[in-house]
Amino acid sequence: MKINENYSNLKDSYLFARISSEVREYSRQNPDRRLIKLGIGDVTLPLLRTAVQAMMQAAAEQGDAETFRGYGEYEGEPFLRQAVCGYYAKKGVALEEKDVFISDGAKSDTGNILDIFSADNTVLIPDPVYPVYVDTNIMAGRKIFFAGGNEGNGFLPLPNEEVHADIIYLCSPNNPTGAVYNREQLKLWIDYALENNAVILFDAAYEIFVRDEALPSSIYQIPGAKECAIEFCSLSKTAGFTGTRCGYTVIPQELERGGRSLNKLWLRRQSTKFNGVPYIVQRGAEAVFTDEGLTQVRENIDYYLQNAKLITETLEELGIWFTGGKNSPYVWLKCPGGEPSWEFFDRLLTQANVVGTPGEGFGENGEGFFRLSAFGSRENVSEAIRRLRELIK
Amino acid sequence: MKINENYSNLKDSYLFARISSEVREYSRQNPDRRLIKLGIGDVTLPLLRTAVQAMMQAAAEQGDAETFRGYGEYEGEPFLRQAVCGYYAKKGVALEEKDVFISDGAKSDTGNILDIFSADNTVLIPDPVYPVYVDTNIMAGRKIFFAGGNEGNGFLPLPNEEVHADIIYLCSPNNPTGAVYNREQLKLWIDYALENNAVILFDAAYEIFVRDEALPSSIYQIPGAKECAIEFCSLSKTAGFTGTRCGYTVIPQELERGGRSLNKLWLRRQSTKFNGVPYIVQRGAEAVFTDEGLTQVRENIDYYLQNAKLITETLEELGIWFTGGKNSPYVWLKCPGGEPSWEFFDRLLTQANVVGTPGEGFGENGEGFFRLSAFGSRENVSEAIRRLRELIK
Repeated sequence: MKINENYSNLKDSYLFARISSEVREYSRQNPDRRLIKLGIGDVTLPLLRTAVQAMMQAAAEQGDAETFRGYGEYEGEPFLRQAVCGYYAKKGVALEEKDVFISDGAKSDTGNILDIFSADNTVLIPDPVYPVYVDTNIMAGRKIFFAGGNEGNGFLPLPNEEVHADIIYLCSPNNPTGAVYNREQLKLWIDYALENNAVILFDAAYEIFVRDEALPSSIYQIPGAKECAIEFCSLSKTAGFTGTRCGYTVIPQELERGGRSLNKLWLRRQSTKFNGVPYIVQRGAEAVFTDEGLTQVRENIDYYLQNAKLITETLEELGIWFTGGKNSPYVWLKCPGGEPSWEFFDRLLTQANVVGTPGEGFGENGEGFFRLSAFGSRENVSEAIRRLRELIK
Repeated sequence: MKINENYSNLKDSYLFARISSEVREYSRQNPDRRLIKLGIGDVTLPLLRTAVQAMMQAAAEQGDAETFRGYGEYEGEPFLRQAVCGYYAKKGVALEEKDVFISDGAKSDTGNILDIFSADNTVLIPDPVYPVYVDTNIMAGRKIFFAGGNEGNGFLPLPNEEVHADIIYLCSPNNPTGAVYNREQLKLWIDYALENNAVILFDAAYEIFVRDEALPSSIYQIPGAKECAIEFCSLSKTAGFTGTRCGYTVIPQELERGGRSLNKLWLRRQSTKFNGVPYIVQRGAEAVFTDEGLTQVRENIDYYLQNAKLITETLEELGIWFTGGKNSPYVWLKCPGGEPSWEFFDRLLTQANVVGTPGEGFGENGEGFFRLSAFGSRENVSEAIRRLRELIK
């Protein structure tokens, strides 16, 4: 019996585990201090009201022999797949029900999608980035190249014609940098993917924060994307589903590689290794896409974007360089005075009692940068920026 | 870009897809006939009452800022992991919370667990068997041997010392045959696994049907299992969770291979590629393990076992050889007169208007056999056996 030796190449200590252990230790030694956590990517507003009502009703249905539903469709229930198509139609993107797969979250699918690709492919991943892209490819033993984000390119790296990639990850609005690709930049990636016969894995988990109508919130708003891109999306941030687990993955039926339909390969993967998302949760997700649901979503996102605005206004005032905070819940700032990420983390923790996320945890290029999240309460965000102003000025 | 070429080795048409297309065609041509479906593995009794109540309450909690819960633990919430430990304690199996991982169903985990093992391992799979074991290993390109079940061994194959296997699948009570390994037989498999440094993947999805106290309902009831076995379990059949999706996987902390803890490898896999089961669903699952929940479970299982008894009594009366139907919801019968599986399927469909599952769909050794399920309503099961008696006598 041999274990998968690629696991030995993974870093053992995970970013958020280290943060939580340092915070715990500080709290133990300073029990009187009130810490404000702007490090988390989790939401704080409760689950959308319409979704809660729909789930309560669906739970009651499941308890009644007349309306009970057993095994559902591996790809998701038609009512929810159609609701997703309707949502895309509002963005000017025409999808068919068959293009849409309901998932238990973008994280699962961005990892599991790799099953349908050969381990021999070369992968291109932006740096800094959400650590799951790197780890899942290390687990499969794939060769990884990085596309470096930095102050110069506004943390929006563009294709390098000298590098050949088979699988390309893009995340826009980006986690952790909050930067958003514009149409021209995404077009360059699509052209590059088509030339290289590559597939773009487009993580749109934060699409709901895009308010600037000139910016794309789906890669399919750019011509050519349906021939080269898979898009992953989530209701986690959109409607408070972080603990309720529902997302969706779009694989256009026209997307083929090596003469095979990627849509059909993924259906085969899902029907063999997955059994669908809970019916109750799918009814909750359906409610998110109703007019009433989308109105409630807008209120919640307004709230988080206002938090982000308070943070970015403070940074502007303090003369600190940053990206994000507009069309994104994340603000990515340059550590004052060229301080390394973890030193700034410690100073912010011990002197201002504010917790953020060191950029170095998202990749080498994140060193010297820092992520703040707008998912806190208004009260906490206001107090945190007051303390930040005090610390930096 | 290369796709995973192993997918080309999968059979394209899936057993249940062929059945449903044949049934659809027959119904189209004979719209006046009332078909009775005893082919499905899905339950018909609704979701457990206590689980419905718990989920409605949890949904309400999620809609309130004071009680809202975001991201949960990748491995499952402590309250549910403890409830599972309590359930095992009643079977005489001592587990720690850390041994238990909450999943979205046994199907996902029996497939995904393969991620932590090298593709070089040799796999041993019983024939006939639940098709997912074979397909997931074909997808990973592993070499597969089969352990043949047949009338002679009661469809309970035992280890063959001449074959070396690294990964061994066992399913008991078995799908599709309904056969259940006794303690001595499981001990032989455990000894074989320990000798070969192999790991047993023990699918106990039907454990709740074991009523004979002499038969094991968990492999951990046999000494040595914690050093060689992973156990998968599900609430699908136990409490009507087929459309609600919750199960659990046990990886004892003492289980190591190549000096690595399989429990830790799986935790790394899950924390990277999975984000936990919905909080609401976990509260529903917790309710299943309460005294009230287990009483309701017993009533439901009594109902299905009584259905199975009606079927097996009829087969005995007709002099048809079978396994299962006791300690299992499946009855596995020898097609009368040595008829091939698909011919018997057609005859049963067109002459008795009863739908079953041809054994050949579960593997070569299933040819000539047939699966009936006890998950229908009493009324339908009674009518089906009346028609069966009519057809065969």
